[in-house]
Amino acid sequence: MDKTEFKEFGYKFVDWVSDYLSGIEKLPVLSQVKPGEISGNLPQKPPGRGESMEEIFRDFQEIILPGITHWQHPSWFAYFPANNSPPSVLAELLTAGIGSQCMIWQTSPAAEELEEVVMDWLRQMLGLPEGMAGVIQDTASTATLCALLTAREKATGFESNRGGLKKPLIVYASEETHSSIEKGAKIAGYGSENIRYIPTDEDFAMVPSLLEEAIEEDKKKGLQPACVVATLGTTSSTAIDPLPAMGDICRRHDVWLHVDAAFAGTAAILPESKWMLEGAEHIDSFVFNPHKWMLTNFDCSAYFVKDPGALIQTFEIHPEYLKTGKDSEVKNFRDWGIQLGRRFRALKLWFVIRSYGVEGLQEIVRGHIRLAKMFKGWVEEHETFELMAPVPLSLVCFRLNGGRDEEDLNDLNRQLLESLNRTGKIFLTHTTLRGKYVLRMAIASRTTKEDHVKEAWELIKKKAEEVSK
Amino acid sequence: MDKTEFKEFGYKFVDWVSDYLSGIEKLPVLSQVKPGEISGNLPQKPPGRGESMEEIFRDFQEIILPGITHWQHPSWFAYFPANNSPPSVLAELLTAGIGSQCMIWQTSPAAEELEEVVMDWLRQMLGLPEGMAGVIQDTASTATLCALLTAREKATGFESNRGGLKKPLIVYASEETHSSIEKGAKIAGYGSENIRYIPTDEDFAMVPSLLEEAIEEDKKKGLQPACVVATLGTTSSTAIDPLPAMGDICRRHDVWLHVDAAFAGTAAILPESKWMLEGAEHIDSFVFNPHKWMLTNFDCSAYFVKDPGALIQTFEIHPEYLKTGKDSEVKNFRDWGIQLGRRFRALKLWFVIRSYGVEGLQEIVRGHIRLAKMFKGWVEEHETFELMAPVPLSLVCFRLNGGRDEEDLNDLNRQLLESLNRTGKIFLTHTTLRGKYVLRMAIASRTTKEDHVKEAWELIKKKAEEVSK
Repeated sequence: MDKTEFKEFGYKFVDWVSDYLSGIEKLPVLSQVKPGEISGNLPQKPPGRGESMEEIFRDFQEIILPGITHWQHPSWFAYFPANNSPPSVLAELLTAGIGSQCMIWQTSPAAEELEEVVMDWLRQMLGLPEGMAGVIQDTASTATLCALLTAREKATGFESNRGGLKKPLIVYASEETHSSIEKGAKIAGYGSENIRYIPTDEDFAMVPSLLEEAIEEDKKKGLQPACVVATLGTTSSTAIDPLPAMGDICRRHDVWLHVDAAFAGTAAILPESKWMLEGAEHIDSFVFNPHKWMLTNFDCSAYFVKDPGALIQTFEIHPEYLKTGKDSEVKNFRDWGIQLGRRFRALKLWFVIRSYGVEGLQEIVRGHIRLAKMFKGWVEEHETFELMAPVPLSLVCFRLNGGRDEEDLNDLNRQLLESLNRTGKIFLTHTTLRGKYVLRMAIASRTTKEDHVKEAWELIKKKAEEVSK
Repeated sequence: MDKTEFKEFGYKFVDWVSDYLSGIEKLPVLSQVKPGEISGNLPQKPPGRGESMEEIFRDFQEIILPGITHWQHPSWFAYFPANNSPPSVLAELLTAGIGSQCMIWQTSPAAEELEEVVMDWLRQMLGLPEGMAGVIQDTASTATLCALLTAREKATGFESNRGGLKKPLIVYASEETHSSIEKGAKIAGYGSENIRYIPTDEDFAMVPSLLEEAIEEDKKKGLQPACVVATLGTTSSTAIDPLPAMGDICRRHDVWLHVDAAFAGTAAILPESKWMLEGAEHIDSFVFNPHKWMLTNFDCSAYFVKDPGALIQTFEIHPEYLKTGKDSEVKNFRDWGIQLGRRFRALKLWFVIRSYGVEGLQEIVRGHIRLAKMFKGWVEEHETFELMAPVPLSLVCFRLNGGRDEEDLNDLNRQLLESLNRTGKIFLTHTTLRGKYVLRMAIASRTTKEDHVKEAWELIKKKAEEVSK
């Protein structure tokens, strides 16, 4: 592909992205294809000869696009969002064009130093303690795994790295914690049976006294507590675990405190949400995802640690072929995580923070929280809907409740969700809270305006009537 | 940022990328900045108000660019390359614009099904056995970790995932294996002391009889062999471990065979390099990186397994909030690796394979191998240079040898490397082979032509004379 053709399709693709994002409301949020429909339209053998970009682009639009679930749709209320934004998309274009692999300082000093700078910007924006050092990971799953590994090494005097894991170490998290804790505990060799799921209170937040009891019980049994995970903003209902009490317990029992704020962390840029981070001085490691609520293209997960030395000691490798004369003077982020190779992710984060400014980002997050409170009010006022959890941020958990028994209600709400998503007009997902099937209305997409939430509510009421018949 | 501004800067950035890639030869391959030079030019606090894209783009060019080491430079001979290509960059733009997070089938059916299809294209292109199933990982480090974890679970009847790792499991790899084996073995809880580094022959390939001896010795001690890693194309010298003999040993001793072909795997698309994969029927898991030699933007690592069921059983999680009505009918790639969140990486791979076609990709790889053989010839013919390893593919290991003692030679070649890289005209890196400091000439950048290799050789000879004085 020569320069002319690259530019021609580059412009075309810029136009396409622009039109895609501005016209996205016309598309069904959730792809309506059936399993096998896309792959059935693709050749099962690779082409021997090269094909024209014209053909590829046509197939992209005709075959691929119908199978895309549109995460940037303003009526995206599912899971948590993975927001992109125009400045972030532009930065991704530059990143792809440069094509640097930023494993160590030498392989692009600007990538390493910009990462250091923007991560400290984020630390300041959230109000994390001075001295905490940041590194970009791909996802919160990976960052949490890093925390579990560092905790494992600290608990065994860095002996597991050498001799392997030989004794049971215990991990504590609330019963509402994210599945990445289980996955990470399995990967790091703790084993899922060595996770203690601590009960939660009526707000679905961990009960700290039960955490302490569990730790003491394990100690009595001769087991070693290694890591406590506090969740700020659980996936099911954005419940906020009580950091001050948990931090205090961790300090007294000398246990690593990891904080998973994957979605909710972004809210801490608001003065009025800073309460979430009270007790932050106790945190050993902290993760939140700018790729969720901070308009930075997936993937971009911000991981902060109090003691970078422990992180590095957990992951460092020193093969001859990676050594440089600068190693003693610089940070080599290859030793701050699992992967050796690293994309230049700091660029998009820098573009986003500079384009919007802290105030611009605050305004967006505040707007979402306002819309969620509004939606919460409608649910509370309505006679056949029921609010199922507090709304500390911008996720509303609710269900249709026509006074039937619990089993029927679960079925009814499952039907409601399916009928809503089948319209393609909005996309919501579900969870269970204390065994009850609950709809999650996550209002955090960059382009979601009041009208989208209103329309969603009208549709929900309409479909609720239909499934209730 | 409105539509007009997005398009304006979109076009500008397309032009910039196009001009960057076509004018890249004028830039120093290795960034010449000093530690702290970039971060010293960046504000230490985030901006309160948003800034214009004009300013951001200006800073990108003035502050960031001098700190970039240009991986796409035709005189890039360092490490292994991380090639991008025009169709791949264009695909990245679409991927960023769509901004899908492809953790499960429902969150973008096309991403899941396209990944399945292009991974099978790759399997066919390399000649891996029918039935092996593929999934895209970010890096070979991650893929190898997946292999070590699956091997751990297989060796313990999936008990480690539940109860934690309780007994020593042993990993075997050649003494020339990549550092990701050590890192992965530490993460997965094996411990670095439970890796057996098997000696290599004069070609730096594993000696299979010594592998078998080591396995038998461990068994006698009551230790459990869990995983053998064969490297096809070691990082230091692209040595090729003997797959047929190693595979046979693994089958007889019932040990998982993982193949790390991160760089060299791409060469298997050539009929004349298919010998590397003889014995492929024994492979349990295999990784190679299209982001190295197959012109697909970093990150894109292709991981194949014989038994996807074992992989899924290692990683599966079933939180309520991720369940869908389609789960029994589709693949959910969240259970095929470590991360939950996944970018839409299949798109760029599809764009690349279709744009170049298999023949186009073969031509590029074949051209690099030809250039490496040419360079090897020059080294062999020259009286003061010495070839340090066989050249099975496109990496030439050599050193300057003026007949001094070994210690002096190491220093001399270190000086030579530094003086070469300081010019900014070419970028090479080093390794050690049997304790000897060796320069690595990795010829595998998409844009490298015969003239670049010739100019590099002239410069190397010139600098060799200077440092020898």
